[in-house]
Amino acid sequence: MKNCIVAQSGGPTAAINASLAGVIQGVLHHQEYDHIYGSINGIIGILEERFLDLTERFQAKETLEQLKVSPAMYLGSCRYKLPNPKEDITAFEKIFKFFEKMEIAAFFYIGGNDSMDTVDKLSAYAAEIQSNVRIIGIPKTIDNDLCITDHTPGFGSAAKYVASSLLEIYHDTVIYYVKSVTIVEIMGRDAGWLTAASALARNEYSVAPHFIYLPEAAFDTEVFLKDVRNLLEKYNNVIIAVSEGIRDKNGNYISASRKTTDNFGHSQLSGAGKTLEYLIQDRLNVKVRSIELNVLQRCSSHIASRTDLEESFCQGQHGVTLAAEGKTGLMVTIKRESNEPYQVSYGASPVCEIANKVKSVPPEFITPQGNDVTPEMISYLKPLIQGEPEITFSQGIPCYLPVSHLL
Amino acid sequence: MKNCIVAQSGGPTAAINASLAGVIQGVLHHQEYDHIYGSINGIIGILEERFLDLTERFQAKETLEQLKVSPAMYLGSCRYKLPNPKEDITAFEKIFKFFEKMEIAAFFYIGGNDSMDTVDKLSAYAAEIQSNVRIIGIPKTIDNDLCITDHTPGFGSAAKYVASSLLEIYHDTVIYYVKSVTIVEIMGRDAGWLTAASALARNEYSVAPHFIYLPEAAFDTEVFLKDVRNLLEKYNNVIIAVSEGIRDKNGNYISASRKTTDNFGHSQLSGAGKTLEYLIQDRLNVKVRSIELNVLQRCSSHIASRTDLEESFCQGQHGVTLAAEGKTGLMVTIKRESNEPYQVSYGASPVCEIANKVKSVPPEFITPQGNDVTPEMISYLKPLIQGEPEITFSQGIPCYLPVSHLL
Repeated sequence: MKNCIVAQSGGPTAAINASLAGVIQGVLHHQEYDHIYGSINGIIGILEERFLDLTERFQAKETLEQLKVSPAMYLGSCRYKLPNPKEDITAFEKIFKFFEKMEIAAFFYIGGNDSMDTVDKLSAYAAEIQSNVRIIGIPKTIDNDLCITDHTPGFGSAAKYVASSLLEIYHDTVIYYVKSVTIVEIMGRDAGWLTAASALARNEYSVAPHFIYLPEAAFDTEVFLKDVRNLLEKYNNVIIAVSEGIRDKNGNYISASRKTTDNFGHSQLSGAGKTLEYLIQDRLNVKVRSIELNVLQRCSSHIASRTDLEESFCQGQHGVTLAAEGKTGLMVTIKRESNEPYQVSYGASPVCEIANKVKSVPPEFITPQGNDVTPEMISYLKPLIQGEPEITFSQGIPCYLPVSHLL
Repeated sequence: MKNCIVAQSGGPTAAINASLAGVIQGVLHHQEYDHIYGSINGIIGILEERFLDLTERFQAKETLEQLKVSPAMYLGSCRYKLPNPKEDITAFEKIFKFFEKMEIAAFFYIGGNDSMDTVDKLSAYAAEIQSNVRIIGIPKTIDNDLCITDHTPGFGSAAKYVASSLLEIYHDTVIYYVKSVTIVEIMGRDAGWLTAASALARNEYSVAPHFIYLPEAAFDTEVFLKDVRNLLEKYNNVIIAVSEGIRDKNGNYISASRKTTDNFGHSQLSGAGKTLEYLIQDRLNVKVRSIELNVLQRCSSHIASRTDLEESFCQGQHGVTLAAEGKTGLMVTIKRESNEPYQVSYGASPVCEIANKVKSVPPEFITPQGNDVTPEMISYLKPLIQGEPEITFSQGIPCYLPVSHLL
């Protein structure tokens, strides 16, 4: 008997189930493993022995296809960081005892930076105890901030949501005759990739968003106010995309500069969008509102990027190939072979070179003024949002696959 | 020469352009009018003589089809209330002088409650000066709060967005192992119809949202906290849909009970969702977040309701029929002939019976506890969100028709 196990971790995306579908499909195709188990709530499921057998569940092609287009994690998630094994070895022993008992030959962990840290630690520990269990990381994050790989699964779908939403917000905004400023706050604490994707809303009739601010460029409130004031002379309705993580030249979050005091005397931080809304309200005599693109930017599967879903699926499959070849301690990577036509290939890199590092937006992707992205950024982003998923609707709402452990 | 003119007003919806398409199609079909003009920015366009000739623009079926699925107002909007003609007749004289000059025989105004007030005043004035110009109102509002008509154009699309979003938020929420409360704030200051539509997110595997609060039922914070506390014993992740306009038994908005003090000493009102988030944070020991479904709930045409778009189109067409029959001072209405199968017919009612009145959610559509909607409400709502629009994508984002006056 030779089995394998897969788990999902971190924040949800519209594509993390596509990667899971790729792993399952890879296992069913390779016939290297007798059973594929799914650990519930990431690595916690292994620690607590909560898992299920996926082998039979996805024999039907339709079920696998539905999994591919369903948001968030079919297997549930966790936010759990393994300790340093030199300080506490308990969890590691528990995990590998489980692997032995269940005759696990490979573990696939789909997740972001923290999950790659888990992959790194587990593969190092496996080497130390001379275990043959293959440990493979499959990337996922809407933040697109993993190193080495060209871009991350889940990012393209979030980017498509952001771009389409910005276009719809543009339509919602330009109808009025009165001058207005609309600030749209987009996820991304440390990296501005997703906020940059708002530029993809521009088309033959709209240049909105008119300004784009990323955490990678120092934010100056006075320059900002001047820019907005000037643009209001040209356009009636100014739309601004802003990353939640924008900060001033000293590295202080713009969002931290204003507090909410509630009836109980607590302090609450306002987000970057709200803070800029108040600033404009206070300093410029113009109608202003802020919009926070909420969790829907990471779970709106009905407007996912088909390119993203396909690539996420392929990366899941590729992880299985790597393990079957006897490789371990790697994260699956994607390489852009050409941009026009857009072509990619799949590879792998040692996960220790990726875990706990952040890929920021490089300076050449941001305009010198720091208030927009360059054409190079647009060329990089555009292929990632192409294509639409095939979503079935039932009773007027999308048909998704329910999270496994709730059934 | 005999012409007509059409305008759009109020807040955007995903279906107000479908009604415009219906008016245009009706005019082209009836051949009663030589030209159909579009007034820019609602009634203001007539007052300022900013308009365009739509007659030639929409000869191609594809252009009309694209208009039908484009968000917000092709002709722009306004928020302008005509004065009482007894106090100030200037605007009225200006409007009817324009009608005379342009040989206008009919004016179609697509909008909500305020726009119906305009229709009411203009038709009364027309009668007074014995003008033959037919004045017809075509309804529109995501709030669904116009009287007499069964439901309003734009509501079904917003309801479909709310229901689909709630389902996606459910997927985003249930993946974690830790207990949490998610509060989703939905538009609706005075009427809870749109918040009620969150109930349509429930399916064979999800009963979320677990609680639904409308402005029509008095909100009691202590009962609320007790309800949430109890439910957290049954479910890990509780999702609550709340109308922005919820209020306590004395009619005070819940959103008003907390203030934001900024660096400049201003006071800012927090929304209902944020207020309940703080309340739970303070009183229950549980992870909590609030999500404000923003303007996308009224302009996400890519997930509009096909039923809504078709009915909005038909109501535009019906308006033209009414004018051609010589009728005036009416608003087009929709009547539900049967629910299973869902069938409707179109009629009209004197606009004076509709303008400045609000259709609240009736008590029988709300549970006695005031924290959910009844099966009768679900039956009423369900047909309105059925079917999906045919959206074309270009470069990864939806292809919409640009707002006319910006070209």
